[in-house]
Amino acid sequence: MAYFADVEKVQYEGPKSRNPLAFKYYNPTEVVLGKTMEEHLRFAVSYWHTFTLQGNDPFGLPTMVRPWDGFQGMELAKKRVEAAFEFFDKLNVNYFCFHDRDIAPEGSTLRETNHNLDVIVNMIQEYMKSSGKKLLWNTANMFSNPRFVHGAATSADANVFAFAAAQVKKGLEVAKQLGAENYVFWGGREGYETLLNTDMKLELDNMARLLQMACDYADEIGFTGQFLLEPKPKEPTKHQYDFDAATTISFLKTHGLDGRFKLNIEANHATLAGHTFEHELYVSRIHNALGSVDANQGDPLLGWDTDEFPTDLYSTTLAMYQILKNGGLHSGGLNFDAKVRRASMTPVDLFYGHIAGMDTFARGLQVAARLTEDKVLDNFIEERYSSYQSEIGKTILDGTATFKTLEEYIIDKEFVVQTSGRQELLLSVLNQYLLEV
Amino acid sequence: MAYFADVEKVQYEGPKSRNPLAFKYYNPTEVVLGKTMEEHLRFAVSYWHTFTLQGNDPFGLPTMVRPWDGFQGMELAKKRVEAAFEFFDKLNVNYFCFHDRDIAPEGSTLRETNHNLDVIVNMIQEYMKSSGKKLLWNTANMFSNPRFVHGAATSADANVFAFAAAQVKKGLEVAKQLGAENYVFWGGREGYETLLNTDMKLELDNMARLLQMACDYADEIGFTGQFLLEPKPKEPTKHQYDFDAATTISFLKTHGLDGRFKLNIEANHATLAGHTFEHELYVSRIHNALGSVDANQGDPLLGWDTDEFPTDLYSTTLAMYQILKNGGLHSGGLNFDAKVRRASMTPVDLFYGHIAGMDTFARGLQVAARLTEDKVLDNFIEERYSSYQSEIGKTILDGTATFKTLEEYIIDKEFVVQTSGRQELLLSVLNQYLLEV
Amino acid sequence: MAYFADVEKVQYEGPKSRNPLAFKYYNPTEVVLGKTMEEHLRFAVSYWHTFTLQGNDPFGLPTMVRPWDGFQGMELAKKRVEAAFEFFDKLNVNYFCFHDRDIAPEGSTLRETNHNLDVIVNMIQEYMKSSGKKLLWNTANMFSNPRFVHGAATSADANVFAFAAAQVKKGLEVAKQLGAENYVFWGGREGYETLLNTDMKLELDNMARLLQMACDYADEIGFTGQFLLEPKPKEPTKHQYDFDAATTISFLKTHGLDGRFKLNIEANHATLAGHTFEHELYVSRIHNALGSVDANQGDPLLGWDTDEFPTDLYSTTLAMYQILKNGGLHSGGLNFDAKVRRASMTPVDLFYGHIAGMDTFARGLQVAARLTEDKVLDNFIEERYSSYQSEIGKTILDGTATFKTLEEYIIDKEFVVQTSGRQELLLSVLNQYLLEV
Amino acid sequence: MAYFADVEKVQYEGPKSRNPLAFKYYNPTEVVLGKTMEEHLRFAVSYWHTFTLQGNDPFGLPTMVRPWDGFQGMELAKKRVEAAFEFFDKLNVNYFCFHDRDIAPEGSTLRETNHNLDVIVNMIQEYMKSSGKKLLWNTANMFSNPRFVHGAATSADANVFAFAAAQVKKGLEVAKQLGAENYVFWGGREGYETLLNTDMKLELDNMARLLQMACDYADEIGFTGQFLLEPKPKEPTKHQYDFDAATTISFLKTHGLDGRFKLNIEANHATLAGHTFEHELYVSRIHNALGSVDANQGDPLLGWDTDEFPTDLYSTTLAMYQILKNGGLHSGGLNFDAKVRRASMTPVDLFYGHIAGMDTFARGLQVAARLTEDKVLDNFIEERYSSYQSEIGKTILDGTATFKTLEEYIIDKEFVVQTSGRQELLLSVLNQYLLEV
Ligand SMILES: [Co+2]
Ligand SMILES: [Co+2]
Ligand SMILES: [Co+2]
Ligand SMILES: [Co+2]
Ligand SMILES: [Co+2]
Ligand SMILES: [Co+2]
Ligand SMILES: [Co+2]
Ligand SMILES: [Co+2]
Repeated sequence: MAYFADVEKVQYEGPKSRNPLAFKYYNPTEVVLGKTMEEHLRFAVSYWHTFTLQGNDPFGLPTMVRPWDGFQGMELAKKRVEAAFEFFDKLNVNYFCFHDRDIAPEGSTLRETNHNLDVIVNMIQEYMKSSGKKLLWNTANMFSNPRFVHGAATSADANVFAFAAAQVKKGLEVAKQLGAENYVFWGGREGYETLLNTDMKLELDNMARLLQMACDYADEIGFTGQFLLEPKPKEPTKHQYDFDAATTISFLKTHGLDGRFKLNIEANHATLAGHTFEHELYVSRIHNALGSVDANQGDPLLGWDTDEFPTDLYSTTLAMYQILKNGGLHSGGLNFDAKVRRASMTPVDLFYGHIAGMDTFARGLQVAARLTEDKVLDNFIEERYSSYQSEIGKTILDGTATFKTLEEYIIDKEFVVQTSGRQELLLSVLNQYLLEV
Repeated sequence: MAYFADVEKVQYEGPKSRNPLAFKYYNPTEVVLGKTMEEHLRFAVSYWHTFTLQGNDPFGLPTMVRPWDGFQGMELAKKRVEAAFEFFDKLNVNYFCFHDRDIAPEGSTLRETNHNLDVIVNMIQEYMKSSGKKLLWNTANMFSNPRFVHGAATSADANVFAFAAAQVKKGLEVAKQLGAENYVFWGGREGYETLLNTDMKLELDNMARLLQMACDYADEIGFTGQFLLEPKPKEPTKHQYDFDAATTISFLKTHGLDGRFKLNIEANHATLAGHTFEHELYVSRIHNALGSVDANQGDPLLGWDTDEFPTDLYSTTLAMYQILKNGGLHSGGLNFDAKVRRASMTPVDLFYGHIAGMDTFARGLQVAARLTEDKVLDNFIEERYSSYQSEIGKTILDGTATFKTLEEYIIDKEFVVQTSGRQELLLSVLNQYLLEV
Repeated sequence: MAYFADVEKVQYEGPKSRNPLAFKYYNPTEVVLGKTMEEHLRFAVSYWHTFTLQGNDPFGLPTMVRPWDGFQGMELAKKRVEAAFEFFDKLNVNYFCFHDRDIAPEGSTLRETNHNLDVIVNMIQEYMKSSGKKLLWNTANMFSNPRFVHGAATSADANVFAFAAAQVKKGLEVAKQLGAENYVFWGGREGYETLLNTDMKLELDNMARLLQMACDYADEIGFTGQFLLEPKPKEPTKHQYDFDAATTISFLKTHGLDGRFKLNIEANHATLAGHTFEHELYVSRIHNALGSVDANQGDPLLGWDTDEFPTDLYSTTLAMYQILKNGGLHSGGLNFDAKVRRASMTPVDLFYGHIAGMDTFARGLQVAARLTEDKVLDNFIEERYSSYQSEIGKTILDGTATFKTLEEYIIDKEFVVQTSGRQELLLSVLNQYLLEV
Repeated sequence: MAYFADVEKVQYEGPKSRNPLAFKYYNPTEVVLGKTMEEHLRFAVSYWHTFTLQGNDPFGLPTMVRPWDGFQGMELAKKRVEAAFEFFDKLNVNYFCFHDRDIAPEGSTLRETNHNLDVIVNMIQEYMKSSGKKLLWNTANMFSNPRFVHGAATSADANVFAFAAAQVKKGLEVAKQLGAENYVFWGGREGYETLLNTDMKLELDNMARLLQMACDYADEIGFTGQFLLEPKPKEPTKHQYDFDAATTISFLKTHGLDGRFKLNIEANHATLAGHTFEHELYVSRIHNALGSVDANQGDPLLGWDTDEFPTDLYSTTLAMYQILKNGGLHSGGLNFDAKVRRASMTPVDLFYGHIAGMDTFARGLQVAARLTEDKVLDNFIEERYSSYQSEIGKTILDGTATFKTLEEYIIDKEFVVQTSGRQELLLSVLNQYLLEV
């Protein structure tokens, strides 16, 4: 049976195509800097946005019209798996990601819930075998259930910590079973609403305790995927602990976890934290912590996580530039943590959204690759910092300079006008690359 | 000669006084939790806002009318010293803070500049002796001069790094000479405008190099004051490296500097970074990094650093609550990094501004002390987290719990409704304490 | 039967009371500036937040524990009415407000829906009679149902406009039946997500068309309550048409509706639009458009509508100051468009939240009244603008001045330093009034 | 003498050119939709950013290196005029804009100041004659001088109002003399810092009084250029009165000035107010108030007016789309109210900045024109709103519908799923047009 009967497998037709269900820029087999686009981009579909959520917002009920409407419980869960693999195939995407609660309903105890989960995980495993699709990462939803109203590992209630621990235990077993390439922790509700009732120190220590247990258990069962933390500054709680990349790195270092965890950087979370997407990728990269990417975009004029499909060519270009600098995403990928707008309620909009994102990243890759090949920015930067290759500059870098040697060097020198940073010119060049690649 | 001839020494007259030049709440000798208000609050006047800056803004020329108007150069610098010590005395404040360039004009070389500085530092030293006033901290202005257009330690130009190093060297010598209790580094322009022309890794490493040299030189000359870094997320540059407390702690840990540096937390910088003031104090405190405080406030509806005098009683109460938890500020203090509005251009407004700030912090101290004594929040929090004193809770805290023991504990338990966080009630109680202390 | 059996009628016990279920400042019969607090404040309970919504957020399921849990459909609707009137009585609040869909469930056609509504409205009418409680305003929920995904009067679909019109028609009939003192239009979803698919002109014109029809129909049925529009800048849609007070006034003037409509100003909507609450009240007041108030507060560090109970004494003081300047709220009131936090899930938190809000507004009224009586701000302002009572000033105000007369007056005058705005002093005075009233 | 001796006249060289001092997209004579690019775009250089300001920021001294450095007073003013006309010529821009104080220094009285102004205006007039360059608009700087610390027309001091009136009088005379096509009022400091000391009603009325006098005086001297108001929400003051387009339109309508004034919409002011640039253009357009444009861009992550050169192709495309819908800018133009970054301090950066802006708008025009020609959005919108051409839809538009007729039409209808808004697809199409035009 076909859930998306009206949609054929999406093909690359090139930039002149007027077919809304074709790729204009994403050509999986096109080679860029020695790898195919498919190898570079490692796109993944988010199970939650595409198969589970229904379009409600804080002021509105569900709007989405889906071929699996009308089913309930485990039957619904199975229909979604069937639809999902049809979707992955038609969209020509190799990876997917899920929270445990996206794929199977909860029971009244964790034992029952795990049983439901097993049924669907086994079904997914079969589909993966026959289709060749792979699990980029899975994670645990520890924020929706009212049990997590005060957080999960950071809850004021030790019983909730215990529940969270058991839930992650199961998640790691699922990851192992399905060969997940990564396992993600997204804070979700790991934060606070008000400091008046919060023991921040205990909560942070507890968060670290749970992560350490996860490392231990992964070792025990032989799960070797990469652990990832996903920063987000706020929402649903006023303040979340993994505010941004730097904060999360600080947390990992403080608790001795930095060797084991990398980051899953989401574009919209970056901008909510006051940073650009590329800033967060850069910070992660230079701390050897760029693990994977949640590929979406926010609205700079809105103060919440809009999780839009990425369509801004500037953003995807500068993101891919950082990813190329990182030598690629390694075990990570570009996961579309993105949802069609509430008013885009028909099934075909799911294709339009993903095609938009894939084409925008494909073009971004092309532009970033050309910038890399032509060393446009590298050469400018090398020249700009060239004084650190001078005699005095080298003493700074090699650690032989002291305040005394530097004072002696500079104390009688007259002021010399600085060289221009050329921001306007570089932005022009970027536009030209964007348009003319 | 008197610069503020119309103003008598400001006295405590109590809450019913209608004298605008009296303290209503700040009573230096009043004992709160075993220490006098004076000992708790350790107020400092910022030299720059009060004696140097003139009220210009991005769209406007200077407006301030000052008794030292009409003087120039070193003569002006000396008049300001005289006025400053009269002001400290009349305001009954024991500490002050300055950037090197606040107190003396620059020459055409660093040697000339240092000579100017020496003259004024010697003069200040005399005034300190006779008045008993103390230097809370000094710092180097490495952001105003066009040489620092691309940053100081983070400049693309090694010559600028050298200049910055030499400038900090002199600053440490001044700190040593004047017995400064701390030495502050404020990023100023340590950041970037665009990643297109920036080598962030090199810049961060260079920033660490300069700080390490400062530690080495302090050891060499025997300066034993506390080193402080002051986080700020942006302005003047688009992105500054010491974005907030967590980011700065991450930087210190990455470069092995965390043993030597603490933080100088500014209220307005906290809110620009998306945090509350008390959040930043809390984060610093639990990382043993709360060093000192820049006491001011921002406008939550404006996106730049307005550096207003602190008049919000909620903010000062919650700040003093964190400071009491920290066992006080130790070598730090409450420095009014605050300026009178451009439209408050008369000299007496300088007194009104400081009195407003001092009274608001004094009342905040009273309220925070009562909250502390009555254990209003402590008891609530202790009860709220009490399950971590239960059998299962203790295994989490003491490290004996594992995913397996926790799963076994929880897997068959039914959901139990969580207890209320009582935010509304706690806010009511806070109001009552505020009004009725 | 009692829904809130553990709660007695809330009494005024004064500022020293430690009873969390007592008023500390709200004393209904206390006379302030010639009217009782009850007459000044005209508090109303919002049916939606208190009786209908369940604590879900964009990342979480319902948490609220309510005595009417377990009931469904019309039976649930009736239980809520019973609970509501018990709550109004125990809280000692005279007014309430509702959307049509808060009080009764929808059927499959509007006819069925209206039938459900009639049953509950009749029941409410009986309760109003016996209790003396009054309806401050009702409104139509034209944003939750998926039919309104593109807006209501501003929908791209004429059928949706027709539905909205019919729904408001019924709303006006209900308002008439229950003696509502006002009828509110809250944009809800009257806005757009992207201009790429939007005819803004048509949508604005249609919005005006619906409002005109409402006026016509009110006249036809003899509903004489005040019409109110409630501005909000965004959320749920990216941009809503009634962005703020000024925008809404502009819309009303453009479409000739300004004589008939006033505004319902919400604190949290003000701050989302970049204004203070008191700014929006002031703007409304001087345009003779201050109709009623949604009394809540937002979090200045969060970018969405948090609808918190008002606990900030500064905000309530400055709001009540504007309301006193307005000669009171007339047919309007202070409606708590506020919800307990998701983590405050027990029924008693509903009381704590409202008590917090009522006490904070009561104290705000006291402070504002004293500021008014003492003419603290009025005298300062009168003096500050006194030059408009000078000879030249009067010619400006009376219209006899021209560019030529003013040039002649000023062209040879030397610059005179301006007088200080004294913001710091005024903020000190405000604090003293707040604490010492 | 040549001020920019190293720069030749900038030529169009097409998209493949690697010459940084050539246009890649701006081809003045290229015909688009029946008019040349030059006729469509009507670019103007801002005198203040390009010839007067020096690169200081709130934390930094001037950095700009300019060929007129070293001159003072009137001599400096004359050098700048010479340089300006060389710049206009080499950049191939036909228009310029200035504030009175950009072009000539102030004296100690207005009479002296006007005398200085006359000298330079006469010189400019000569240059205009010989070069054919034209004045898009002039305006009065009524915000920099300390006299305007509390505003100009909205000052608390009637003497300041008189000065402002006299200053505008002179500005209109200059506009008349130089044949300005528009005259702009930018609020500058027409707002408030705190409501505690402000009579908002009087200030707004006074603002209207000054504008009315300006209309009267323009009529008297026969100045027939278009009057424009430029909205900005904040900065330098906390709140400015012309917050955004809707607020300004509201003000104009309230004071009966809407027939005489249009708006000058600035991109960066739009985003500071929480709107997109295209939103503000659209709002202005449908109120017949789109007069002219300040072409720049802000940084969505910064909370102040960064006035960057426009380089975002999305923004220029959507702006030009609105301008085409408006039938062009008529007497208005695209004025680069934009400054090179403080770190772009060399003269050639002035060319790079303008070329970046001109190319970005030229490409935006091309894309917008193709979208217009192909009716990509128009057709989608026409179809989307087509139900308003149905029988029931027409009764809504023509005013024959009432609540009763609409209720009768809809009351028994079952819910019909809405059609998709297709935001994702439209964004894909926009990208394709952007890249492939
Ligand atoms: Co994500
Ligand atoms: Co997100
Ligand atoms: Co500071
Ligand atoms: Co500051
Ligand atoms: Co409301
Ligand atoms: Co609200
Ligand atoms: Co402008
Ligand atoms: Co601007």
